[in-house]
Amino acid sequence: MKFNLDCHLFCFGTFSERYVPNGYYDGVDVKKAFETIASTPVKGFMNTWKPALLPEDPEKNKKFLAEYGLVPSLVLIDNFGDRMFRHGAYSTSQKDVQKENMKLCKDGIDFAKALGVHSVLLWPAHDGMDYPFSVDYRATWERMVDHFIEIAEYAGDMKLAIEPKPQDPRQKMLVNSTGKAMMLVNDIGRDNVGLALDVGHSFAAAENPAEACVVMDRHNKLFQVHLNDNYKNADPDMIFGTVNFWENLEFMYYLLQTDFDGWCSVDIIANRENREDSFQACVALIEKYYELASRLLESKDVLQANMENYRFSRNIELISSIIFK
Amino acid sequence: MKFNLDCHLFCFGTFSERYVPNGYYDGVDVKKAFETIASTPVKGFMNTWKPALLPEDPEKNKKFLAEYGLVPSLVLIDNFGDRMFRHGAYSTSQKDVQKENMKLCKDGIDFAKALGVHSVLLWPAHDGMDYPFSVDYRATWERMVDHFIEIAEYAGDMKLAIEPKPQDPRQKMLVNSTGKAMMLVNDIGRDNVGLALDVGHSFAAAENPAEACVVMDRHNKLFQVHLNDNYKNADPDMIFGTVNFWENLEFMYYLLQTDFDGWCSVDIIANRENREDSFQACVALIEKYYELASRLLESKDVLQANMENYRFSRNIELISSIIFK
Amino acid sequence: MKFNLDCHLFCFGTFSERYVPNGYYDGVDVKKAFETIASTPVKGFMNTWKPALLPEDPEKNKKFLAEYGLVPSLVLIDNFGDRMFRHGAYSTSQKDVQKENMKLCKDGIDFAKALGVHSVLLWPAHDGMDYPFSVDYRATWERMVDHFIEIAEYAGDMKLAIEPKPQDPRQKMLVNSTGKAMMLVNDIGRDNVGLALDVGHSFAAAENPAEACVVMDRHNKLFQVHLNDNYKNADPDMIFGTVNFWENLEFMYYLLQTDFDGWCSVDIIANRENREDSFQACVALIEKYYELASRLLESKDVLQANMENYRFSRNIELISSIIFK
Amino acid sequence: MKFNLDCHLFCFGTFSERYVPNGYYDGVDVKKAFETIASTPVKGFMNTWKPALLPEDPEKNKKFLAEYGLVPSLVLIDNFGDRMFRHGAYSTSQKDVQKENMKLCKDGIDFAKALGVHSVLLWPAHDGMDYPFSVDYRATWERMVDHFIEIAEYAGDMKLAIEPKPQDPRQKMLVNSTGKAMMLVNDIGRDNVGLALDVGHSFAAAENPAEACVVMDRHNKLFQVHLNDNYKNADPDMIFGTVNFWENLEFMYYLLQTDFDGWCSVDIIANRENREDSFQACVALIEKYYELASRLLESKDVLQANMENYRFSRNIELISSIIFK
Repeated sequence: MKFNLDCHLFCFGTFSERYVPNGYYDGVDVKKAFETIASTPVKGFMNTWKPALLPEDPEKNKKFLAEYGLVPSLVLIDNFGDRMFRHGAYSTSQKDVQKENMKLCKDGIDFAKALGVHSVLLWPAHDGMDYPFSVDYRATWERMVDHFIEIAEYAGDMKLAIEPKPQDPRQKMLVNSTGKAMMLVNDIGRDNVGLALDVGHSFAAAENPAEACVVMDRHNKLFQVHLNDNYKNADPDMIFGTVNFWENLEFMYYLLQTDFDGWCSVDIIANRENREDSFQACVALIEKYYELASRLLESKDVLQANMENYRFSRNIELISSIIFK
Repeated sequence: MKFNLDCHLFCFGTFSERYVPNGYYDGVDVKKAFETIASTPVKGFMNTWKPALLPEDPEKNKKFLAEYGLVPSLVLIDNFGDRMFRHGAYSTSQKDVQKENMKLCKDGIDFAKALGVHSVLLWPAHDGMDYPFSVDYRATWERMVDHFIEIAEYAGDMKLAIEPKPQDPRQKMLVNSTGKAMMLVNDIGRDNVGLALDVGHSFAAAENPAEACVVMDRHNKLFQVHLNDNYKNADPDMIFGTVNFWENLEFMYYLLQTDFDGWCSVDIIANRENREDSFQACVALIEKYYELASRLLESKDVLQANMENYRFSRNIELISSIIFK
Repeated sequence: MKFNLDCHLFCFGTFSERYVPNGYYDGVDVKKAFETIASTPVKGFMNTWKPALLPEDPEKNKKFLAEYGLVPSLVLIDNFGDRMFRHGAYSTSQKDVQKENMKLCKDGIDFAKALGVHSVLLWPAHDGMDYPFSVDYRATWERMVDHFIEIAEYAGDMKLAIEPKPQDPRQKMLVNSTGKAMMLVNDIGRDNVGLALDVGHSFAAAENPAEACVVMDRHNKLFQVHLNDNYKNADPDMIFGTVNFWENLEFMYYLLQTDFDGWCSVDIIANRENREDSFQACVALIEKYYELASRLLESKDVLQANMENYRFSRNIELISSIIFK
Repeated sequence: MKFNLDCHLFCFGTFSERYVPNGYYDGVDVKKAFETIASTPVKGFMNTWKPALLPEDPEKNKKFLAEYGLVPSLVLIDNFGDRMFRHGAYSTSQKDVQKENMKLCKDGIDFAKALGVHSVLLWPAHDGMDYPFSVDYRATWERMVDHFIEIAEYAGDMKLAIEPKPQDPRQKMLVNSTGKAMMLVNDIGRDNVGLALDVGHSFAAAENPAEACVVMDRHNKLFQVHLNDNYKNADPDMIFGTVNFWENLEFMYYLLQTDFDGWCSVDIIANRENREDSFQACVALIEKYYELASRLLESKDVLQANMENYRFSRNIELISSIIFK
């Protein structure tokens, strides 16, 4: 597994929320943000399509990033930030919105190809429901699958990573878990369609990210990894590793055993915390978990043997002795 | 129990959220909002302090409301909508913010007295934490209690209702449940300090709102009732009664048995749904639950006897026969 | 959709739990249990393999059931009630347990064929984990898939229904949701392998059972339906319809639109409540929900149009007027 | 704070659960259990009343414990393991059960006094509800408060620790959180009545155990500490520190700052894991957390300053550098 870190500009944005619509900080200071990124081992940058603060022209975009030692890594289709998509970008019954979304996705794929990124991120954010008796599940699923198939065929060789999440912004989202996302990938049935494993979304869906990683990887569908943390009951995109220590360490331990050659994205939001400090602390923690997991892998044979023989107590003692001072 | 309904303007606002900061609709259409309110049995209006869209002058404010057949019912201190309060309005270590909040609360209480409302609503929204090792719990609690005591003494006869909520906007909030709020009320130790029972917050805290109602009422601390609904894992202020039918009905059944003479607030947000339709549907549902609970009370003796003799099966059969066609 | 009700003897058993190992009642009174069943519209009986209290001989078993007007409906393989299966029946690394389970499943399938039931129920109860770093996810998944393939091929025409559940008895179970179960069914890749939709498990997995029903049905994988209820944070197999009214009604509304011709199982446990009363109350509630959903279907065109046009408020008003007195 | 560890025999028992009523192991091997305890730094033993496997005679009990270098530390009233208490020991409407419980509690207090333990543990396990409309909340609360007052007065100088828990064995329990328990303590109003802080129960109630510790301590109501862990959605009494690392470390950091002079109880269950290994691993982890927290306290001034100045990023970097290799 190659350990490539990238990030996006939301890390340096202001977190709009219900009670404080403009967030706790002013808008992104682009220069300061990229200088902070450049001060860390992060080497890739996830553009949005359309890019809000960076050049839309692929060559200019690459050139801008190169100035900070970065390459374009991924493209995220922004079909969730406009109220137009309120009833879903992929599953909506509104024909004009469907059409708009199809164009946006195809243009974004063109942009991604021109940038030469690893894969395109598709997040069905508003595809879901808020109330019982508010959505026709059958029609909704069918439209969504058809929509993804058309996008997948357009994309050709470009990899598409669909990102599951259980809730927020909808009370319940259609692609709510690793399992449901795998079912969807099967329904779409195209080789270039896989998944993004967002560790925080996986926690919010009551999963083990480590197990989710294995499940995606053994189907060759682990296309992207997003790193953040939470208390499992919401998705505030907190600094990776600050809440769920053991499960994040276990996740890293399994991730390191895959052949994953994509990007691990620093995917956090600093709401009240200083944004530059948060980012640097997050990168430092990711590297620390990577280092601890690497150290565990040196004892892989013993750890796996204890697992296969159901001797957890010995594993936790061994692991403690390896990682703690 | 007197069944008085009031509401606030958030019902007609646009729901700012993380992904769609400006929400799914344009700002409040004040005229349309009040005409909608006037078309329902709602008789009271909860002002905010400071009032964003209504007159600050109490007499003008009352006069404005009177035009729509409304009286001022409650005042909500808005010490959560400005980023200044990001670390808490009551518990923060920032002396200037503490001072600002104290002034805001006192001015709001003056406004409330001038309007002649039933009580003032205090919601410690940002008083909490996001990360382990981010907040000094001891200092935080002590500042909050002291702060509330000073406000309570200033308020004199004016009732103050503190509103608990488990999370959002903080990952964990200090006043997170009915129980914790009752403890805080005990710590404050002033007769004019009680609680607001927000049914949705109670669900989000894994409580029975019916039991919360009884607990507050038997301590004479049930000062306000806020009506909305959710899936118990977040607080989207959905239309009352659309998710948790039995528990809301049970809540209404117990509420009707109290001597509560305050206001029951329509406390919803229409994010994607038409705002006027949502409001009217919510009022209609509240009245339906009220009517169903009233009908159950006609069989109160049997229902209570079945409870005290642990015969739930008979209760559910009786209740079904009373409420369903 | 044919509405066929069946049940099992656990409805009349004593609920062993951690603190009261022998449960709140004495063991099953078989005669009383079957007389109670016979007093309701329930027409099928789910045997376990091996049957604990009924004849192992298929002919005698059928004859016994016929005395109470019942037919054998389903067979549940009991590979979870013996401590031998503590590390999983399908995914364990213990070769002797794997072998024992394979024999049990095959014998159970033979029994099922001899009885002429609709399908066999397979629940991977102990296939999961309790601690981070306690289970090798890759080996575990691979063994489970291989195990199911062998069983599926043995079963031939007999339908197998795999039942997902998020937790209990394991802290996290491998087949934890509808989505993951659908992925597993895809991995197994045999026509006779489908799913059991346990409404309570679906709630515990934060799903909409209505949506889960549609998802399984559109893949022709809805083989069994288990009816019970809970507060979404555990699986106490409570009386159907006593907690989640709207979602259960929505589930019934969608179920009635499928071509499902299997059995709907009364799948409850009476822990503290009188067992016979619970059972009868549960059957009565199931029938009430069926009746209410049938009435809603008379307005299907309007309901679906409101869904497809995102007018929830009108739906809730219409539904209220149809179902409440 | 004095760091005194004790334990109970449930650590070495067999975990009865719904699907495997007799648990995954045979009954307690008393000799082996006490030899294991004696091999660790545990110095106290929590008896139950009535003691199942140890002498009822206080002198003989003490003598037995002394042989293993142990002293009697606490007494737990077992008013939850018999089906008689199914509707609650403290709040039930059944007069005979109330009476039986009162006698049991008083006898247990006599036993505790004769043993000379620190405090008596009272856990209202079955005092709660399973269904909406199944319990009369008002009567229930009032009986429970009255019951506790009578016990408290009988106990005199003996400290009583009430233990909150959100659910299990009831779907919802009356004393469900630290806050509600503090309210109850206020209602009882006796100096000798305080609380047991069970870390796992606190997690299951969505609390920060660190904050719960501070809240109880500042009211002088922290009487007992029970150490175990879980995934926050159930209470399996897992090995302390194996799931929630940061929050447990934060808890230990705050606990060490109190004047607590009671017992910290190893309060785990080994369901599938080897019991002796589990116990030893748990004690080792507790000591490791204690040691890590002690090391953090050496930097207390910086940590607290970062908290009070809302610089979490710096804290997590400092803490990481202190505890990880």
